[in-house]
Amino acid sequence: MARRLQLVSTLSGCEYPFERIEEFADNGESLEVQISDIDRAKVREGRHLWERFADFLPFTNADAGVSLGEGNTPLMAAGDQLQALTGVGNLLLKNETQNPTWSFKDRGSLACMFLARELREDTVATISTGNMGHSVAAYAAKAGLAAVVFVPTFAPQEKLMAMAMHGAHVLKVAAPDYAEMKNRVLGLAGRLKLRIVSGNGPIRVEGYKLTAFELFEQMRGKVPDFVAVPTSACGHIRGVFKGYRELQAAGLIDRLPRMIVVQAHNNSPVVTAMKRGLSQVVPFRDFHTIAEAITSGNPAGGDEILDKARRFDWLGEDATEEEILEAQRAFARAGFFVEPSTATVLPAVRKLVEAGRINRDASVVLMLTGAGLKDLDALKYQPCGGVIESDVETVEADLRSVLGR
Amino acid sequence: MARRLQLVSTLSGCEYPFERIEEFADNGESLEVQISDIDRAKVREGRHLWERFADFLPFTNADAGVSLGEGNTPLMAAGDQLQALTGVGNLLLKNETQNPTWSFKDRGSLACMFLARELREDTVATISTGNMGHSVAAYAAKAGLAAVVFVPTFAPQEKLMAMAMHGAHVLKVAAPDYAEMKNRVLGLAGRLKLRIVSGNGPIRVEGYKLTAFELFEQMRGKVPDFVAVPTSACGHIRGVFKGYRELQAAGLIDRLPRMIVVQAHNNSPVVTAMKRGLSQVVPFRDFHTIAEAITSGNPAGGDEILDKARRFDWLGEDATEEEILEAQRAFARAGFFVEPSTATVLPAVRKLVEAGRINRDASVVLMLTGAGLKDLDALKYQPCGGVIESDVETVEADLRSVLGR
Repeated sequence: MARRLQLVSTLSGCEYPFERIEEFADNGESLEVQISDIDRAKVREGRHLWERFADFLPFTNADAGVSLGEGNTPLMAAGDQLQALTGVGNLLLKNETQNPTWSFKDRGSLACMFLARELREDTVATISTGNMGHSVAAYAAKAGLAAVVFVPTFAPQEKLMAMAMHGAHVLKVAAPDYAEMKNRVLGLAGRLKLRIVSGNGPIRVEGYKLTAFELFEQMRGKVPDFVAVPTSACGHIRGVFKGYRELQAAGLIDRLPRMIVVQAHNNSPVVTAMKRGLSQVVPFRDFHTIAEAITSGNPAGGDEILDKARRFDWLGEDATEEEILEAQRAFARAGFFVEPSTATVLPAVRKLVEAGRINRDASVVLMLTGAGLKDLDALKYQPCGGVIESDVETVEADLRSVLGR
Repeated sequence: MARRLQLVSTLSGCEYPFERIEEFADNGESLEVQISDIDRAKVREGRHLWERFADFLPFTNADAGVSLGEGNTPLMAAGDQLQALTGVGNLLLKNETQNPTWSFKDRGSLACMFLARELREDTVATISTGNMGHSVAAYAAKAGLAAVVFVPTFAPQEKLMAMAMHGAHVLKVAAPDYAEMKNRVLGLAGRLKLRIVSGNGPIRVEGYKLTAFELFEQMRGKVPDFVAVPTSACGHIRGVFKGYRELQAAGLIDRLPRMIVVQAHNNSPVVTAMKRGLSQVVPFRDFHTIAEAITSGNPAGGDEILDKARRFDWLGEDATEEEILEAQRAFARAGFFVEPSTATVLPAVRKLVEAGRINRDASVVLMLTGAGLKDLDALKYQPCGGVIESDVETVEADLRSVLGR
């Protein structure tokens, strides 16, 4: 019996064809890919991760020609400093900033390009101000597809130019607010038969599963107790978890990691709902956070995450602006320059340990989602210690003073 | 017989102790590490590249604790567009932008930290405006060493802050010119027993050898015909070549790749000398190039490169400012966002093919040395095509116009 692929809405269970253009169910719920014979899936031989885990993926003709060399990112011991800061003895970093466009988004973009090639789509489109737009633009260039990135007018020009360098059409859309811009753009999708790729789309989620498969290989079949993920549209965290669930369905692991949903305190629609025991996200509006890569104030995928959190005993925690800035410095002083959104995971895990929700001997993977280079502007909020004005006459004295020699 | 390590000056053959603090010979020549029994070196089993190639490296006690997860970067087919642009059928990209600090420098920094740990040094210092300073700062943070980065006053503040985030002491040194600043700082080294790490230092070169070893593994023992490297201080290109020579000395390969020295036309001290058949570099002063990562106007290591180029039939070519900008766009349209210095390799190889110096059926590896994110400022020189001003009323018409639907 050939395996069957379909899309299923994640709360009500409605079924849709795999090729559906819109990325959410008619009632707004997240969709996910269901593979009929996932329980018989096996790990194969293969050079690429997606070849070894082909049984777990919905692509029938994955083409290496669309890859930019994503994945295969290091999983590393976090080191003494970060362990001491969090109180976790077995703290691991999964460094997704070493992807081709320097964020986790590339794994989702790979999956989108596999699909676009299979369906013979000629265009890929997304709404973004940052990592997502850049990643989609780069992958569309590699795959030879047209790319359209809709951006709000407040997006920094240099980021738009970086997307345009890849040949993307960048449409800066003036609108009363970001939500209205999004709605208007999504409305176009059906009329123009254009797939507007969302950060929580079902195909991107299939790409994020690859991170779970890679962790499975890197940890030689062991499952971490916790995986902490900075969360905005929700696609990343549900992708990683879906990967682990399918490994379990296939009998390759016997337990699941517990996910830790991490958001900025100033914009925590999912975490606030988790803390209050609600089944629907608490929308945030008119907020400001330095964690610019996680700014979905009312993520369409949030309700599913709340459902998963209840059923699988996930944790949720936030990070204040001050904690984020401090954590970005702490990461850098351990050698890792991450963007502010990524830095949220450090205080979140620390607080969960202090509250007794995470045991000190647990294994915890922190997802380093985006490079600090992505947002050098954010450094203006950091205290500028360490930069010393000197000149050729005083440099020896200044150096001796710095080194205490 | 235990193996013996020493430093040897690369032209006159003078010998120095392996632990020498200054990074050049007394006469200014480049130094290189000589391992006494390299001809008996073997590839070992091991998780890390430096473990598998330990026989080829001068570290007796390499400690994984100083690694940030450098290397293991993709080697990929460049794709049809870049092949067509250069005329090379077997064009490969070695994407060093997927290193921990997003440039090739990290392999050299790893080697520096191995040495610093072995010699129980507590401080590492360098002179830099960009990739080098950032990489050294990050690795020093990981290794728990103090870092000092000397920078000229024209270095952009945000880059300095990124280094300072890692805990480095950043000394901005006002001086009549960059060369005088460098001389003054190097003069301090001996007095303060401080190793001022140079981009062409013998230990960094040992780190860059790892790229050759990784290529050897990725190409399953095959040797590319050419390896093109954007060249400034000269450490990178001589490190990669030294790696290949030692593989040959150990009997693992039977021929060497020919290296292609690539520089910006506006600052081409080595390439100009190669073209003129000179044995000494032609110093450049008061130049401007957008390729800010390759701005050594009078590299101390250049004469050795000229010697190697003659003996091993290397090629040299440059790229004009216009060619660099065009090539940066071409790389981006193939999916790869590289910094301008990296983009030089594309027109250089194209011109060498057109001149008949590289056969169209040759295999050519292009080193992608640094990420485009490193220098978003450079985008201001690019034509800003692709960014379209729109609003919620006109977006559908604008989109239809862009897509031609």
